[in-house]
Amino acid sequence: MSESYAALHTDFYQITMSAVYHRKGMNAEATFSLFPHDLPAQRGYILAAGLADALEYLRRFRFTSEEVQYLASLNRFDPSFLEMLAGLRFSGEVWALPEGTVCFAGEPLMEVTAPLIEAQLVETRLIQLINLHSTLASKAARCAQAADGRVCVDFSLRRTQGREAGWAAARSSAIAGFTGTSNVEASRILGTVPVGTMAHAYVEAFGDESASFRAFADTFPDGTVLLVDTYDSVEGLHQAVQIAGELRQKGKRLVGVRLDSGDLVGMSRQARQMLDAAGLEETRVVVSGSLDEFRMAELMSQGAMVDVFGVGTKMGSSADAPYLDLAYKLVTYDGRPTLKLSTGKETWACPKQLWRTLDGDGRIARDVLGLREEKLAGEPLLQRVMAGGQPTGPLPTWQDAQRRFQEQKATLPEPCLRLLDPRPLTITPSRELEKVQQQARQAALQRGKRSF
Amino acid sequence: MSESYAALHTDFYQITMSAVYHRKGMNAEATFSLFPHDLPAQRGYILAAGLADALEYLRRFRFTSEEVQYLASLNRFDPSFLEMLAGLRFSGEVWALPEGTVCFAGEPLMEVTAPLIEAQLVETRLIQLINLHSTLASKAARCAQAADGRVCVDFSLRRTQGREAGWAAARSSAIAGFTGTSNVEASRILGTVPVGTMAHAYVEAFGDESASFRAFADTFPDGTVLLVDTYDSVEGLHQAVQIAGELRQKGKRLVGVRLDSGDLVGMSRQARQMLDAAGLEETRVVVSGSLDEFRMAELMSQGAMVDVFGVGTKMGSSADAPYLDLAYKLVTYDGRPTLKLSTGKETWACPKQLWRTLDGDGRIARDVLGLREEKLAGEPLLQRVMAGGQPTGPLPTWQDAQRRFQEQKATLPEPCLRLLDPRPLTITPSRELEKVQQQARQAALQRGKRSF
Repeated sequence: MSESYAALHTDFYQITMSAVYHRKGMNAEATFSLFPHDLPAQRGYILAAGLADALEYLRRFRFTSEEVQYLASLNRFDPSFLEMLAGLRFSGEVWALPEGTVCFAGEPLMEVTAPLIEAQLVETRLIQLINLHSTLASKAARCAQAADGRVCVDFSLRRTQGREAGWAAARSSAIAGFTGTSNVEASRILGTVPVGTMAHAYVEAFGDESASFRAFADTFPDGTVLLVDTYDSVEGLHQAVQIAGELRQKGKRLVGVRLDSGDLVGMSRQARQMLDAAGLEETRVVVSGSLDEFRMAELMSQGAMVDVFGVGTKMGSSADAPYLDLAYKLVTYDGRPTLKLSTGKETWACPKQLWRTLDGDGRIARDVLGLREEKLAGEPLLQRVMAGGQPTGPLPTWQDAQRRFQEQKATLPEPCLRLLDPRPLTITPSRELEKVQQQARQAALQRGKRSF
Repeated sequence: MSESYAALHTDFYQITMSAVYHRKGMNAEATFSLFPHDLPAQRGYILAAGLADALEYLRRFRFTSEEVQYLASLNRFDPSFLEMLAGLRFSGEVWALPEGTVCFAGEPLMEVTAPLIEAQLVETRLIQLINLHSTLASKAARCAQAADGRVCVDFSLRRTQGREAGWAAARSSAIAGFTGTSNVEASRILGTVPVGTMAHAYVEAFGDESASFRAFADTFPDGTVLLVDTYDSVEGLHQAVQIAGELRQKGKRLVGVRLDSGDLVGMSRQARQMLDAAGLEETRVVVSGSLDEFRMAELMSQGAMVDVFGVGTKMGSSADAPYLDLAYKLVTYDGRPTLKLSTGKETWACPKQLWRTLDGDGRIARDVLGLREEKLAGEPLLQRVMAGGQPTGPLPTWQDAQRRFQEQKATLPEPCLRLLDPRPLTITPSRELEKVQQQARQAALQRGKRSF
């Protein structure tokens, strides 16, 4: 397989539209705005993520010669267009919310300004990357909140929707405050220590639970977490206490026990009690199994005694809301504001900026969406992260994003933070934006009617 | 970037458990069974998919030297284990349901028999691939059913969960009966013609809707589908009829018009009427916008006149059920049946076969799950697809799978096919399996209690 920069990982219409633009000599500067129309029912905010991968995509964007040959083989495109594609690089400018920022419906996560063909061709992949990472980050943030100070780790890999989704789950949950992932490939890239315990199959392969525990502790005296529910959790816990005693005699300690099924509230309390009674206060109780923010909050409210949550499938697929309603809309072409009037889907014209004002308690009082050239009160949130096709600085790291989210979280009003039926903030358009929008709407209505 | 065979795309515990197995000399033959515990609420069956990619993964499975070096850098593994990993290939046997087979809770989609370490290390990726493809295929099959004979095409790419998910959506929906995808990269691999229309941005960039339509028809006289709802759908339709007339004068025809918002029932009927009145019976009405099987069934029942459904996000993320509850459970180790007794999650021991019996109408009467060596009535569904780490024949193609699903669909009892609240079949265990299971359960209970 030759290298691929994902340029063909796009919708076919991006290429046919570009062929028309090329033929008609339409390649003036365009600005597209990437924003969520609405939030899913159970999201009080979006945690912005995916920018690092999006910028890397733009920086490396190109069609390989094999890919151009494939397009030629479709017999739809003329040679001058294909030649143009072969040499095409992304040369544009990008404004974006830094990863880790919290945002709401109608707020641009990203605005792309470039010659029309470039800006059009990158649409599909940009939506895909920002959608994937922000969807999983927003879900993971809710899980971390429900954990109420307990440690969360990412156990989702096996039921994420593919290799890139597994990566996104690991990185996005780290931004949201998770402290590790079981995904080895992702740990390697993130520079984190991969985490894990043992599977039921492991205990079953030994047949003898006690022997399986002892073999693990022998091999990893500094990193053993014993899964105690393969046959009978209470007896499994007794075995674990026994192994912990043996480790102690070697000057080591049992890191934890894991419960993956059954009455997690009752069993976690019993585990804590048995461990404490044996002087194993440092040994942690790890709980896993179909966890999401709702189940975790329920466990905590019912008095479960948990030190670590292993959060899997429902976080890694954002099971209750596996996508965001993200759009990438043309807002200016060749200096002219543009918008769509389709029923219920009108979009804001022009390049924009977002100004955030906090109240006396440090909570968000107002997000004002205005024209980019305006000067309004508050902190302007969109940053120029790429110019001339190159990042304006080092690519943001996930650690930067994690720090930013820690700060941002503290600015969220309580209704945004409710796990059940949260109420997200609504944006305030600036007067100037409303004025320009009205003019653009009139012009568009005229355009729609022009030929009648 | 060096090549990677995804061996590190796994959970860390696969590697730590393997290190223990290696140290203890435990590498006898193991069989793992991959099956769904339960089906999601709105699924009456699972359409099995993902086997081709799973077998390709097994065939290529290896740790690169860089990956082994990374594992060494964690200071958790001894040199003899790392050396073993560096030379490791998958040498096992795989039995599986051919892609395109319909199946139900408790039925193995795949059984893997190999030396314990090999079988353990591939768990995460096998679950991930079968889960991803079968989840999306099962959702796409419901959409194809709701389309009631109309054409469905995959428009989901931008909101799929990453690059591999986009590929899986394209391939799985093709298996389910979709006739094309907008995903160019996937079309290239599948050998299908990529499909697409135009975006609102395209119309807006021109400003003049009529000019934008004409430019497209000029460039692609044989492949134009006009998006008519950017400003006003009725006026857009008038423009489309005009362009169709111009194409006709050149001996060409307008392929279609697309509606993406608003009153899709009313507008599709109006579109059909206007096109027919202009003698454009061949021009197709394409409908898109937040479609899933429920919305499509509603549109059809309300009398929408649709030729092509462009099905996007909700299919490509299987929005109402973005994962299957797939497990990969050890069922035999070193000739000994194994199982897990964890509350509510007991699994069937031993390598198995699945026999399907049809009734007089050609519908599934019974699926019997038995021991692999049994000889029971009905068609045995699990096939030996890999032996000695090599596929037993050419890798299954998506076309094979599509054909198989067309046949299989006709065997589904009506309650499985209900879009709302379907009732999946429940398996019948063979008497022999129940007997062996009871013995294995007793042995496991003893094992759980052994040390007390």
